Amino acid sequence: MILGSIEAGGTKFVCAVGNENYEVIDKAIFPTIDPATTIGNCIAFFKKYPEMQAMSVASFGPIDIDKHSAKYGYITDTPKIKWSNCDFIGMLKRGLGQNLPIYFTTDVNGSVYGEYVNLKDQLPKADLVYYTIGTGVGAGAIQDGHFIGGVGAPEMGHVLVKRHPDDLNFTGICPYHGDCLEGLLCGPTFKARLGKRGEDVSDDDHVWDIMAYYAAQAVMQATSILRPARVIFGGSVSRPHFMEKVRDQFRQLYNGYLEVGDLEEYITNPSVPGNGSATLGNFALAEKMLHQ
Amino acid sequence: MILGSIEAGGTKFVCAVGNENYEVIDKAIFPTIDPATTIGNCIAFFKKYPEMQAMSVASFGPIDIDKHSAKYGYITDTPKIKWSNCDFIGMLKRGLGQNLPIYFTTDVNGSVYGEYVNLKDQLPKADLVYYTIGTGVGAGAIQDGHFIGGVGAPEMGHVLVKRHPDDLNFTGICPYHGDCLEGLLCGPTFKARLGKRGEDVSDDDHVWDIMAYYAAQAVMQATSILRPARVIFGGSVSRPHFMEKVRDQFRQLYNGYLEVGDLEEYITNPSVPGNGSATLGNFALAEKMLHQ
Repeated sequence: MILGSIEAGGTKFVCAVGNENYEVIDKAIFPTIDPATTIGNCIAFFKKYPEMQAMSVASFGPIDIDKHSAKYGYITDTPKIKWSNCDFIGMLKRGLGQNLPIYFTTDVNGSVYGEYVNLKDQLPKADLVYYTIGTGVGAGAIQDGHFIGGVGAPEMGHVLVKRHPDDLNFTGICPYHGDCLEGLLCGPTFKARLGKRGEDVSDDDHVWDIMAYYAAQAVMQATSILRPARVIFGGSVSRPHFMEKVRDQFRQLYNGYLEVGDLEEYITNPSVPGNGSATLGNFALAEKMLHQ
Repeated sequence: MILGSIEAGGTKFVCAVGNENYEVIDKAIFPTIDPATTIGNCIAFFKKYPEMQAMSVASFGPIDIDKHSAKYGYITDTPKIKWSNCDFIGMLKRGLGQNLPIYFTTDVNGSVYGEYVNLKDQLPKADLVYYTIGTGVGAGAIQDGHFIGGVGAPEMGHVLVKRHPDDLNFTGICPYHGDCLEGLLCGPTFKARLGKRGEDVSDDDHVWDIMAYYAAQAVMQATSILRPARVIFGGSVSRPHFMEKVRDQFRQLYNGYLEVGDLEEYITNPSVPGNGSATLGNFALAEKMLHQ
């Protein structure tokens, strides 16, 4: 069996082809330029595999995943102007064949599904939440093997949080909400708070404590609302020393209210190596679609 | 068909017997005293209906709903000392017969399920969240007809929120977290903030604006994490003038980030009249159990 995966991010598209064991047999990375160029590159890559039976796309958003919508399969009104109103799935189908089954979900849903596939045999109940902290803050969640989401996909970054006492003068950078979780925690807040990029911020800078205070509140929300077995953090901000601080803050803030087990295991980085969660998730979602 | 319902609350137990149309054919209310007295009263009531095929119990908590647990069916370590470690379902089975199928869930899950039963034919996708604001703050949620909850039931009151600028000196009354949502919004905060009971607080008191600010953040969390079709508020605090304030605050705080439709419909009181949501939910859950 040949399955396809696109992890469509704001800076790059990761394309992969895999087999029935979800092993990657070919891979290509294309920069995120404009739909004609980048999706064109994806199509050229996958055309080498005419035997591909299904694929799945995990995309940056906002995207329309409502199958009853006229804009199903679109990237909708994103600030990335070249990508706004882009008929992503339509373009793929025109390039690769109208009969190719293509699953479409959010980038974070792809990632959380990959983690689910990788962890489900190890956990009695593999209900997971996967936060990514990068350009923005987003999350996907799984319960009983199904995505959490009602009339649309979660937008877990856009919730308000208790402010850290040493951060009261920072107004936050979310264009909608100012100091929502995303506005206080996403990667670009390094530049806004300190005037430099996250890569250039030392591990002992107090900003990490401030940001961990907010990430720990995200874990409180995930724990209190969804009761997952694991809360996983991916994205460029979620470095190991930061995760240690998130665990410490969660321990203090949540005060043992619910039993969540060993915090080293509960609050963790992705289990799939090499940033491969979304690719693995896509392979599994593509195959699952074939069986439905 | 004869179905039974117990809505077990901190001040009273509402027992009801219903038919296959979920119509109440008998009902009794007993004060919450101690397990022997109150559960004894429930058993005596239901013994009048030996033809009862199944029942469902929606209980105050914390409760153990993990069927693999040795304490499944228990009210666990509640501050109500007489009820701590009470084998609720075991007592009912000993009184009513070991073979009687009894479904066991949280009070708020019973309520949200009743709302789901009542609304599912009216809504394209009846994914719902039901907050109750009373002695505490709790919530239940439904997605695709199933309860939200991973390794346990939600505890949506125990999340942190952004503080209202006029409420910075109030420390909150949650014994675990101080100023979590429950610690800032539950009914007993009236006494803690104003020295009087909620019934005695006039509708134009500024405290309602402060509390609406927190309830609106609960709606933001529910919206961003679960994407429901409706967010329903029950409990003694959720009076109509308060709901109006919650809508106003949500409108300002969320700033139109996601389309949620008419706020009068989106943020609302229960649709089932006469505080009957949990009873209706129990009837439906009892019947559903019979079919599984």
